[in-house]
Amino acid sequence: MFGVSFWKKLGLVCGPLIASSALLWAQMPSHVPVPKDNPQTAAKVELGKQLYFDPRISVTGTVSCNSCHNIMSNGTDSRPVSAGAHGKLGDRNAPTVFNAAFRSVQFWDGRAASLEEQAKGPPTNPVEMGMPDGEAIVERIRAIPGYRQQFAKVFGGSQPVTFDHMAQAIASFERTLVTPGSPYDRFMAGDKNALSPAAQRGLKLMESAGCTSCHSGPQFNGPEQPMGTGFYMKFPLNDHNAYVKKYNLDADEGRKEATHQESDEHMFVVQSLRNVEVTAPYFHNGSVKGLDEAVRVMAQTQLGKTLNGSQVQDIVAFLDSLTGEFPHITLPRLPETPNTTLLDK
Amino acid sequence: MFGVSFWKKLGLVCGPLIASSALLWAQMPSHVPVPKDNPQTAAKVELGKQLYFDPRISVTGTVSCNSCHNIMSNGTDSRPVSAGAHGKLGDRNAPTVFNAAFRSVQFWDGRAASLEEQAKGPPTNPVEMGMPDGEAIVERIRAIPGYRQQFAKVFGGSQPVTFDHMAQAIASFERTLVTPGSPYDRFMAGDKNALSPAAQRGLKLMESAGCTSCHSGPQFNGPEQPMGTGFYMKFPLNDHNAYVKKYNLDADEGRKEATHQESDEHMFVVQSLRNVEVTAPYFHNGSVKGLDEAVRVMAQTQLGKTLNGSQVQDIVAFLDSLTGEFPHITLPRLPETPNTTLLDK
Repeated sequence: MFGVSFWKKLGLVCGPLIASSALLWAQMPSHVPVPKDNPQTAAKVELGKQLYFDPRISVTGTVSCNSCHNIMSNGTDSRPVSAGAHGKLGDRNAPTVFNAAFRSVQFWDGRAASLEEQAKGPPTNPVEMGMPDGEAIVERIRAIPGYRQQFAKVFGGSQPVTFDHMAQAIASFERTLVTPGSPYDRFMAGDKNALSPAAQRGLKLMESAGCTSCHSGPQFNGPEQPMGTGFYMKFPLNDHNAYVKKYNLDADEGRKEATHQESDEHMFVVQSLRNVEVTAPYFHNGSVKGLDEAVRVMAQTQLGKTLNGSQVQDIVAFLDSLTGEFPHITLPRLPETPNTTLLDK
Repeated sequence: MFGVSFWKKLGLVCGPLIASSALLWAQMPSHVPVPKDNPQTAAKVELGKQLYFDPRISVTGTVSCNSCHNIMSNGTDSRPVSAGAHGKLGDRNAPTVFNAAFRSVQFWDGRAASLEEQAKGPPTNPVEMGMPDGEAIVERIRAIPGYRQQFAKVFGGSQPVTFDHMAQAIASFERTLVTPGSPYDRFMAGDKNALSPAAQRGLKLMESAGCTSCHSGPQFNGPEQPMGTGFYMKFPLNDHNAYVKKYNLDADEGRKEATHQESDEHMFVVQSLRNVEVTAPYFHNGSVKGLDEAVRVMAQTQLGKTLNGSQVQDIVAFLDSLTGEFPHITLPRLPETPNTTLLDK
């Protein structure tokens, strides 16, 4: 991806570390992976955008995908845990939708193998969008003439409006939600002024302290995995420290809740660090408000290290350099139900 | 606004009715009224758009102006009554924000004299956005660097971020939310094919049945009033009919709740009919789901008339011709709070 001369310019490392660094540090890919059975088309992306913003997919007509994964902001809701229909609270922090297309599995516990599979979760989750089942959602969508027309055009066939097609359209839209052009990516492309001295010190520290043993690669979420396969890590790894109790970090059984395997207890998908500056609060339970504290907690619980103040500042400076350029998006117009409404109460 | 020849083309009326018709039927004005103390500027409109979409103005961080007045849709939420923070329900239907700039007073009971005054209501209403007071909102806004900068640029002075300035910016954005170009407006501009024969029959019926005694003028909400002065009508006017009980139409005391005057009992601001096709459900309590039924109810409760099926169809055809062209809007980017969040729980 880049040669020795680049690393010399960085002044980072020499000798054997160069080879491993090339695996650790990488730029944002120029394209998102697209599954063969759901190719991107403009009409499908446009339909997916409407569905993404449409609160009628929720039982109350008040919660859309965008409610908890707000693409006017950071792709999440800035809350510890999200509030769904009837104000019900979830128990895990909403991950950002930006760059989710690069994740090999979805949800904190990796229980969805694709964006398509993920998109079918929240609509029928009782504390999220709260619809009774996929069929009820399909009924709502079929009752909206503008959707019937678009599904027919995009998917064809005798039964174009299906729950699977809804998920495919939403996933296609989500594949457009990427944030290239971060200072880090510009730095990696050769602009040595793109990172401040503090951020450059932070970059080195990420490696020397051991953060990159998990947070490596173009998304900083570990070694590349085939789609559908997750890269997991136990969190908290060291549970004998004050942070675990203070932030209740071991209450959630993690992936074990999905697989019911003891070996998956407290295992979580390693999270991307892209846009972490703007996706507070942090961790699966959203218990930590500030990025500086999140860095201290990670160093202690995962690496058994206590960082000093300037080390934390340098790492935060580096992490802040991972904020990319957010796409400009035109508001969709949601198709109407002329002279009536689908929402009763 | 248009002369006798136009009315002859319409084939509507002749003689003395022409003069009164010219007051009843009017096109969408080309400009919205703008108060002298809150002139429109591009930067203020852009700031107002961000605030309009920002859920951080609500106590939970989940409810923005757009939650109940969704400009991706019809400017309302298609629900009987809205769901606010913590899922709490209001008791009146959310009016559409589209063309609200033309209304001389705001809210169903006219208790706000301007868009600026209206914009300060929902943020501190316990069943809407639920913030304790304006100062708490100002604190939230001041904690967001991108807002501090924009308020300073737009309003200047030593204390640019105020609750009043927030309301001014939101009102300025709302003044851009107008829907010209409806089939009705094109018809009034001379395109005689813009209305179907049914819609043209409906237009005549609106006048002969008496609907236009209230629903007249460019917004179909009555004679022009100076800003701050409402045009009110009792609803239900005739309360001895089955609809009143069926739809619980007399439970709400209307403007009396705001003024505590007996004479204001069951008085409501006469509503615009623009975009009524897409703003179901209907009436102050959102109790009627279909526009055809709403027409029957109005004829009975306000005019003491029972319309037959084809009359109802013709009036609905006319009302459907009042749907305008909705503006194309780019999603705002909400300013961030780097490395932290304002939302605790």
